Amino acid sequence: MAYYVGIDLGGTNIKAGIVDGDGKLLNKASIKTNAQRPMEEIIHDMGSLAARVIEEAGLKKEDIAAIGIGSPGTPDNKAGVLVYAGNLPFNMAPMRKLIREVIDLPVYIDNDANCAAMAEAIAGAAKGAKDSVTITLGTGVGAGVIIDGKIYSGFNQAGSEFGHTVLVSGGVQCTCGRKGCFECYASASALVRMTKEAAEANPDSKLNEVIAQEGKVNGKIAFIAQRMGDKAANDVIDMYTDYLADGLANAINTFMPEVLVVGGGICNEGDPLLIPMQEKTMSRPFFGPGVKKTRIALAQMGNDAGIVGAAMMGMTCVRDNIDGTAC
Amino acid sequence: MAYYVGIDLGGTNIKAGIVDGDGKLLNKASIKTNAQRPMEEIIHDMGSLAARVIEEAGLKKEDIAAIGIGSPGTPDNKAGVLVYAGNLPFNMAPMRKLIREVIDLPVYIDNDANCAAMAEAIAGAAKGAKDSVTITLGTGVGAGVIIDGKIYSGFNQAGSEFGHTVLVSGGVQCTCGRKGCFECYASASALVRMTKEAAEANPDSKLNEVIAQEGKVNGKIAFIAQRMGDKAANDVIDMYTDYLADGLANAINTFMPEVLVVGGGICNEGDPLLIPMQEKTMSRPFFGPGVKKTRIALAQMGNDAGIVGAAMMGMTCVRDNIDGTAC
Repeated sequence: MAYYVGIDLGGTNIKAGIVDGDGKLLNKASIKTNAQRPMEEIIHDMGSLAARVIEEAGLKKEDIAAIGIGSPGTPDNKAGVLVYAGNLPFNMAPMRKLIREVIDLPVYIDNDANCAAMAEAIAGAAKGAKDSVTITLGTGVGAGVIIDGKIYSGFNQAGSEFGHTVLVSGGVQCTCGRKGCFECYASASALVRMTKEAAEANPDSKLNEVIAQEGKVNGKIAFIAQRMGDKAANDVIDMYTDYLADGLANAINTFMPEVLVVGGGICNEGDPLLIPMQEKTMSRPFFGPGVKKTRIALAQMGNDAGIVGAAMMGMTCVRDNIDGTAC
Repeated sequence: MAYYVGIDLGGTNIKAGIVDGDGKLLNKASIKTNAQRPMEEIIHDMGSLAARVIEEAGLKKEDIAAIGIGSPGTPDNKAGVLVYAGNLPFNMAPMRKLIREVIDLPVYIDNDANCAAMAEAIAGAAKGAKDSVTITLGTGVGAGVIIDGKIYSGFNQAGSEFGHTVLVSGGVQCTCGRKGCFECYASASALVRMTKEAAEANPDSKLNEVIAQEGKVNGKIAFIAQRMGDKAANDVIDMYTDYLADGLANAINTFMPEVLVVGGGICNEGDPLLIPMQEKTMSRPFFGPGVKKTRIALAQMGNDAGIVGAAMMGMTCVRDNIDGTAC
């Protein structure tokens, strides 16, 4: 059986693990990114971490078919280069070349949101579906699109930046320069903003009590205050799920995926979030009579999605005969 | 050389023609749809029209590799059935079976917006690009997506209903049931609505003079009044191109296509529409530093896009070994 190394490159940590062909994670390890360092040092450490998880799994280099790397930003998998990586110090970084100087295996690179989608498609909530979209609600809103079992990244491998589609024309200023992006209304950060605004506008609301207890505003406040019967908190969740559902329905109308996977820490809130999200979303898309409907599912891969997805992206590149050796 | 029949099924007319493998239209013919008739009669006439264009081109049935049909609504190409067709009287219509009773050739069915996109991809503005999106600004806003040279229609073949993605949350009521769809702000009908509203709000504007001359409000009024130096008309075009650009930038961020093709009669207005559309759109998408940018192009296939696209969709189905004989 062939095995794959998955590397999840983040701003704080670099995580890696060995994954089998079914998407099962055998082991994992993590090191600090120390993102202030020169990119060559970071990439060297990624290669060493790959070698370490291979050894710790009791495997040899020859057992590994590929190394897959999930990164923020925009990779160029054909060239083996990380073109741009948001806040990380990578600009036209020759990732494949430098990793192969440490450990000589085929190396593939893709966007982290794409890798998360691939993990869900192979081993998670969209297993068995040929077409799926995975939306992750975090600091921003990430989107990964799987079409016919392959990651769809556009002609420039910039991936689907569905979080940066305008949902509220002229709305809240987004970090991307546009106004009213889906991300500004459906990310965990958006829920925090809505919670703050509601607390300020409603001094008597339980929101303020809960904020005082927690010591800061986070994505859980509105749900805690809602359970205490607070109207302002209920209104916040109603508004948030309205926007979220509008954006998810946009994703369905755009891609008509068999499964729309929704993930991110906020999903841990359970039914008070999930029931209105599901009901509002499914009341909105444009399905004609008799047309099969998209299924909404919660992400299942959790914190390992990055590692597993990167490895499985490597697997599909090997399967599709993409050259991961050229630099 | 193999030839293909393309059939463009519309609410008013059924058009058909012979197309060669390069997307060149050799001849065409048209009949009235008479959409009040039973669907069996309409489908029978489609088969007869196919036989007629074959004969008029001096060809035989054996020269034809496939018949492609572009239809409104949602087809099921695998089953050879038109599931649903908007205002046309087709519900689970056994299109392939009935056409083959008239003329026994492989029959393929797809959405008309998809066929238009295929025509542009093979013989029009996106020729040579593997990934392209074609947006057509008409009564509504149609969208067709070509990925890796194939039509992308989602798991249910409902196609990309990108016109029904919300751009203005809580905005204008759309025919689909949602509020604030892209279609409500970027279709020719939207421009007519904006023109009417501006004319009413500005009784002294030249808009009212031009409307009186033309006898009704149409999509040209604002452009005519703008050329007369009218401020209200200029504001209408500014607003319309703002929304249009927001939606086109959404399409780019979502699909990252090599080429974004824009079509529809309104494009005939030329530079007063196209220059702001192009400039505003390209100032908005989310391209990281060093990332290749999408090119915007005007549709080239005009009124023949439906016929050529349907034929070329048939061609790609033959190429990809899709079974067009089973019913």
